[in-house]
Amino acid sequence: MNKGAQTRKAILNTAHQMASQVGLEGLSLGTLAERMGLSKSGVFAHFGSREELVLALIDEVREEFGRRVFVPAINKPRGLPRLEAIFDGWLSHIANMRGGGCVIVAGASEFDDRPGPVRDRIRRTASELRRTLARAVRQSIEEGHLRTDTDPEQLAFEMHGLFLIAHQDWRLQEDASGFTRARMSFNRLIAMASPLPH
Amino acid sequence: MNKGAQTRKAILNTAHQMASQVGLEGLSLGTLAERMGLSKSGVFAHFGSREELVLALIDEVREEFGRRVFVPAINKPRGLPRLEAIFDGWLSHIANMRGGGCVIVAGASEFDDRPGPVRDRIRRTASELRRTLARAVRQSIEEGHLRTDTDPEQLAFEMHGLFLIAHQDWRLQEDASGFTRARMSFNRLIAMASPLPH
Repeated sequence: MNKGAQTRKAILNTAHQMASQVGLEGLSLGTLAERMGLSKSGVFAHFGSREELVLALIDEVREEFGRRVFVPAINKPRGLPRLEAIFDGWLSHIANMRGGGCVIVAGASEFDDRPGPVRDRIRRTASELRRTLARAVRQSIEEGHLRTDTDPEQLAFEMHGLFLIAHQDWRLQEDASGFTRARMSFNRLIAMASPLPH
Repeated sequence: MNKGAQTRKAILNTAHQMASQVGLEGLSLGTLAERMGLSKSGVFAHFGSREELVLALIDEVREEFGRRVFVPAINKPRGLPRLEAIFDGWLSHIANMRGGGCVIVAGASEFDDRPGPVRDRIRRTASELRRTLARAVRQSIEEGHLRTDTDPEQLAFEMHGLFLIAHQDWRLQEDASGFTRARMSFNRLIAMASPLPH
């Protein structure tokens, strides 16, 4: 990585830390520059505008999520083992999140009624995550691990709801029992969708 | 209602509208006063500080929620009819929310890592909602509408997760299908917890 790319990466890291605490909207370029010992124009040299930085940050969070949750799951066999790995990986990603909770979850509430490129990027990221879940369900059906009458979008919706409530219980209430509860619910959803024994 | 109480109520209404768009953290007393044609000290006459206003707003949101969701449900027979009324009332409250989504849902992400009275109030409000759900489940068990081995906290957790994901799908993606999906999941949860026919 050359010097420019390194600085860019370092700016995104610091921005991520800050945004997880104050939200995407609360992210101040002045404070960010100060914290990094850069001038504001030094930050602008890497990101043309505040909005550009926020968009790059969303992409960075999305990629980090992929590396931590989806990449390890890809190494599991296609079908239910991969779906289970995504589920567990997602929960442990929530449990181990540094700083102040997920920037995308917070951003979804912050930006849901502010039309513009940031909302669009958060929307796209959230639906992409949902589609990835639905695809893993679909593959589990194809592999014969789940019944053919399973609705992939419905199960993906339910899984996503379990992540959101486990995230809220953990971040807001510091209650880790949501992880076990989410796993119990998921086990039941999978059991219900499992092919009947012959 | 006397003049003072009326003004207080009007300030809370405007604050609610604003906070649903910019978040509790983004709420500015200057902008609020301006929008209402009051002086800033006019607002301070009713709420001693910005924090006091935010706390009063959370209580107001909580009471409005109670009036819209819990009060109508209380008129239904104890047990499953009341639990179903809470579920449907909660979903339609989300669907009909004015302005920019739920201040408590957004506040949960905004304040989860900011210790202080605001976080404490949001925490308390969120756990109170959860306890009300669990109590309605418990009553359904007592009435014989749900099996005695049903875990009230688990079902309340699952219901809460369905509300959060339906809220996100609706507010962020403008996708109303989450309401139907949430209802389908709930039907299944209830069916699984129903006493076996004799």
